[in-house]
Amino acid sequence: MPLAFCLKLFPSRSKYSDPDLHRCFRLAGHPDRCNEFPYLDHLRQVAPRVRAKIIRDSTMTTGASWKSEDAGPNRIRRWTMLLSDEALLEQFSIDMSSLKPQVVSKLREKAASYEDCMAVAKKLTFLAYSMPDAPHIPEETRQYLEALYGDLAPESTACLVCKENLSFSLFEYARRGKAEIETAHSNPRLHSPDNVGFAHRSCNIAQGPRSLDEFYDWMQEVISRVRPIN
Amino acid sequence: MPLAFCLKLFPSRSKYSDPDLHRCFRLAGHPDRCNEFPYLDHLRQVAPRVRAKIIRDSTMTTGASWKSEDAGPNRIRRWTMLLSDEALLEQFSIDMSSLKPQVVSKLREKAASYEDCMAVAKKLTFLAYSMPDAPHIPEETRQYLEALYGDLAPESTACLVCKENLSFSLFEYARRGKAEIETAHSNPRLHSPDNVGFAHRSCNIAQGPRSLDEFYDWMQEVISRVRPIN
Repeated sequence: MPLAFCLKLFPSRSKYSDPDLHRCFRLAGHPDRCNEFPYLDHLRQVAPRVRAKIIRDSTMTTGASWKSEDAGPNRIRRWTMLLSDEALLEQFSIDMSSLKPQVVSKLREKAASYEDCMAVAKKLTFLAYSMPDAPHIPEETRQYLEALYGDLAPESTACLVCKENLSFSLFEYARRGKAEIETAHSNPRLHSPDNVGFAHRSCNIAQGPRSLDEFYDWMQEVISRVRPIN
Repeated sequence: MPLAFCLKLFPSRSKYSDPDLHRCFRLAGHPDRCNEFPYLDHLRQVAPRVRAKIIRDSTMTTGASWKSEDAGPNRIRRWTMLLSDEALLEQFSIDMSSLKPQVVSKLREKAASYEDCMAVAKKLTFLAYSMPDAPHIPEETRQYLEALYGDLAPESTACLVCKENLSFSLFEYARRGKAEIETAHSNPRLHSPDNVGFAHRSCNIAQGPRSLDEFYDWMQEVISRVRPIN
């Protein structure tokens, strides 16, 4: 049975977001205040950086690691990137025509609807709680996420790319200032719950802009050349 | 028979280089002026960017793509990185203690002797001329490089990583401002002629800091998980 969300509109605080597009994802008829990410309230207590990462990765483009006129805005809401060049200039003072073509295509590739981003956030939370050493999920959150994505199976979240089990503790590790777990996409140009997962940083980098199928095809070709079976 | 080089000392123009360490690599007893890269004179005429790339990749650390106090010098001669922290501060005003540990280790990893860098430049030139569509090599340069690395076999230069043939024309292509061919290392921490080659940019990125053997091992493991043979 699909969940009935409250979906009441929210004001937003970000310079680059559309205030009309924030909605409450508590269940319809809830008491008290609205909440865009109610299923992340527990992680806010026990692993606030994981919660922040899930929200960031589901809703924001990544872009360059620095911000400049040339590189464009370094993080911008994915659904904002669905707007036309004209609307971006008018509403957000983002002049796409001033950016390099490669920056524009990188930003446009990350575009996704608000609905998809919200679904991705729920899916990533579901996957985080399915890691072997994840914090124990509160019953209410479990029911909420299971209604969306089926039974939570502990220890079932593997790296999207290499399929090795991922440890929740990796969220806390960083090497050279970069997190060891990244959000990855089976098809990098599709930001939807069926298409996202967590991956080792090195695996995500190795996959690059290819789809997972293309990446595995490439690996098989290379292995057949460098280590042929006699 | 090993080549006898002139090896006369050169003055240098770079802020970060050691003036004592530039030598002439024309053959001993040559007429006219000394030349550090005589075997690249032909490419200077017909493919100057390839010549510049070979010199840069053989002699310089890569480091960050920007330069800042925090990131350290973005390009510095590899043999300079063999100096102690004290010598770097005294001779080049590079304060290693002010840099992040990850930047320091990245810079130190790229350290290589001047001799190795010079041998790498010759090897890369040899490999560039062995690409299918390489410019025709002048006889004098051919003899020079063949004395060092054996017979030049046209069309024999494959990507170090994926082993597909590499086209010389790829040197001219760039996507998102990045060259499509990069200098790669079988063991990324070893800058020597036996250990370098050219690779597709995407292949070099996918290999990351692993050795090629480690990378192929990883690929085989992944393939055995995602596409097991029935």
